[in-house]
Amino acid sequence: MEEKNRLRQQLDFILEMDRLKTITRQSYLADGSRKEGDAEHSWHLAVMCMLLAEHANEPVDVTRTILMVLLHDVVEIDAGDTYAYDKEGNETKRTREVAAADRIYTLLPDDQAAYLRELWEEFEESSTPEAKFAHTLDCIQPLLLNYASKGRSWKEHQVREENVRARNAHTADGSQVLYAQVADRIMKEGVKTGWLKGSEGMPE
Amino acid sequence: MEEKNRLRQQLDFILEMDRLKTITRQSYLADGSRKEGDAEHSWHLAVMCMLLAEHANEPVDVTRTILMVLLHDVVEIDAGDTYAYDKEGNETKRTREVAAADRIYTLLPDDQAAYLRELWEEFEESSTPEAKFAHTLDCIQPLLLNYASKGRSWKEHQVREENVRARNAHTADGSQVLYAQVADRIMKEGVKTGWLKGSEGMPE
Repeated sequence: MEEKNRLRQQLDFILEMDRLKTITRQSYLADGSRKEGDAEHSWHLAVMCMLLAEHANEPVDVTRTILMVLLHDVVEIDAGDTYAYDKEGNETKRTREVAAADRIYTLLPDDQAAYLRELWEEFEESSTPEAKFAHTLDCIQPLLLNYASKGRSWKEHQVREENVRARNAHTADGSQVLYAQVADRIMKEGVKTGWLKGSEGMPE
Repeated sequence: MEEKNRLRQQLDFILEMDRLKTITRQSYLADGSRKEGDAEHSWHLAVMCMLLAEHANEPVDVTRTILMVLLHDVVEIDAGDTYAYDKEGNETKRTREVAAADRIYTLLPDDQAAYLRELWEEFEESSTPEAKFAHTLDCIQPLLLNYASKGRSWKEHQVREENVRARNAHTADGSQVLYAQVADRIMKEGVKTGWLKGSEGMPE
């Protein structure tokens, strides 16, 4: 009976997770055909983590980092996706996301709820090597897609170089290699091609 | 220089992976709003693996199983999704998928290509506890979605109970608990509700 209740709680959570597939992000797929969903974005980060962990500044526990990126956006089931360059949305983001975590994780058996909640809080706090690297992946993935789709999302939202640089202020904390070889290069290339509005007159 | 080439190969593979998001499966999302994509399906299996591994028949290496399910459908980038109940498609499936693996994995640096290819072959062979459990997850996830969407995909394809039972012939090999408590229950319930065509006259 205990066992059945536990499985039922797990299945309820697993079905709830299905809703993450319906949350749409602002990034377009590389082929530009449509916007990306949260679940497939999380999948992409997990694959990237497996392949790129060797470029992290400090050794990372790859399993823990993969679990973290798989679940980092779960709170968006209730809170929605907040576009990185939406100022007002970002002011209320934390409050909305904590309320979401309080509801969603409690669907699970207590031990699993506590473990997943802890993983999410670790990601949010961004002080462990795993959380820092997870944020690095979460920042470079949309840059890769934006570049592949010829800056489609940047152009749609008239994003400026300074916005992307601010968003990537901590990308090097997880991996200096990925910051220099991916993020910084794509930002420079984005300005050169005109897909990303340059920050004329901005201090260097 | 070596380092840069290695990263370039990894990024090429990572961008190639983006195409998995555009491969559509026959299962509908739980809310019935649209069909599921391969990348979000793989994400769902990884989350399920983390939570349900305790129900596997034998202890499984959770990390290895998660990596396996994250990548089990990568070959469909070239080979497309073969519906479980498409007889002709399933006859050529293996040949098409091997050709896909030959092309896709070689985008990666040799060591990572070999590791990922080995993981996929292990999944295909389905003889280790990890591969068996990965197949169990891959079989029960569409059952959960079909049930949640009131049998939408079954009805659309006029699927019969005997087809679903054949597809689930090895689901118990990975987890007897999940077979009995999820797969078998949903199949019985599907027939009872009429969402799944019963197999009248079929031997028990």
